[in-house]
Amino acid sequence: MFIDDSQFDIDSLAEQETLRIGVILFPGFQALDVFGPLDVLNVLSRSHSLTLALLASTNESVTTKLSQFPNGIGQSILPTHTFESTPSLDVLIVPGGLGTRESTPAVNEAISYIQEVYPKLKYLITVCTGSGLVARAGILDGKRATTNKRAWATITQWAPNVQWVAHARWVVDGNIWTSSGVSAGIDVTFAWIAVVYGEDVARTIANGIEYVRHTDSHWDQFAELYGLKL
Amino acid sequence: MFIDDSQFDIDSLAEQETLRIGVILFPGFQALDVFGPLDVLNVLSRSHSLTLALLASTNESVTTKLSQFPNGIGQSILPTHTFESTPSLDVLIVPGGLGTRESTPAVNEAISYIQEVYPKLKYLITVCTGSGLVARAGILDGKRATTNKRAWATITQWAPNVQWVAHARWVVDGNIWTSSGVSAGIDVTFAWIAVVYGEDVARTIANGIEYVRHTDSHWDQFAELYGLKL
Repeated sequence: MFIDDSQFDIDSLAEQETLRIGVILFPGFQALDVFGPLDVLNVLSRSHSLTLALLASTNESVTTKLSQFPNGIGQSILPTHTFESTPSLDVLIVPGGLGTRESTPAVNEAISYIQEVYPKLKYLITVCTGSGLVARAGILDGKRATTNKRAWATITQWAPNVQWVAHARWVVDGNIWTSSGVSAGIDVTFAWIAVVYGEDVARTIANGIEYVRHTDSHWDQFAELYGLKL
Repeated sequence: MFIDDSQFDIDSLAEQETLRIGVILFPGFQALDVFGPLDVLNVLSRSHSLTLALLASTNESVTTKLSQFPNGIGQSILPTHTFESTPSLDVLIVPGGLGTRESTPAVNEAISYIQEVYPKLKYLITVCTGSGLVARAGILDGKRATTNKRAWATITQWAPNVQWVAHARWVVDGNIWTSSGVSAGIDVTFAWIAVVYGEDVARTIANGIEYVRHTDSHWDQFAELYGLKL
């Protein structure tokens, strides 16, 4: 808990339209890629109308666990919808994780869904190697985008027609917001909120969760750390 | 995905004993309080032996949703154990969230469990107002501890015999690590890993998830922001 109810009555924005958010889940997703953005959106939804759909290929719970680390720990999340039963969405969030490298039905259906739904979206937001899934859907061709910096070589070779930007915390091209590795998903979510709902809303939420944002999309010490071309 | 398997073979530490981690869940927990630390521990578990138990008062899924924000969005997590069926633990993580303010059976059972299990733990780690639950269990009396800075007045009045430290990202007293609001849970987890597994392990994971740690436990711009006595 971190907020007094009274401090979060931003009435002036309460009449704003409902934004319908969807988040894609697949086995081996990275937990923070999903729950960084969602924690921020959970707080946003206390003052602004949002709906949330958690989308996966089946109704079964989806684990963060990775087959290559059988002794690793993980968490399982229940989706609210399958790709075949998704409601209409305004915003789609695509997380990353080692699971993006798979070509299982779960991942292939996610890619097909991204391809099909993109033309109907207002915004597409990716975290980490989630941009790899969107790239595999062909949607990033000719566009500027970024991804996880340690996985750079793997992801960028999947889609050589993307204008990959190595030195970036996040990149905006049209209505597509791609961010760098894992925790960059929190920063891109705040940057997106600042544009859509206003900087005051973004700042209030960040202060509530005691998060120091990277507010410069060009900031990226990790591109340097991993020796990427600047 | 953000890591090459080959880069994470820290063989020298692979023989370390298994640490058995538990995380308490209750309705209205803050998602990032749980999934910030857990994402870091998920990655740690690829190279170091961990087990994980998600503990709640019943086997039913536990929601982040808050009764006072009925239109807000949230996520539900399935526990792995009830408080009555918990395995032995070495480390207990207690998250915060507006749900900590309740006196429901779910919260009261969590407090009783904390009270009962603490003497058997190697480490107790709290995030945000999770320290309020531990304080309500009487375990922090006479000890130094911190909590969320916006909720400071509410939480500290629950336990006047705690030596509350206003200006701190986290506080260590004996085997109890308490941290400040929400995202501070990520920093305290890394600080704890640095002590238990070594700074190299903490740094490698932070670089993998592209997270810039606050490594100074005294750093706290939010105490100042909320006008707390320094």
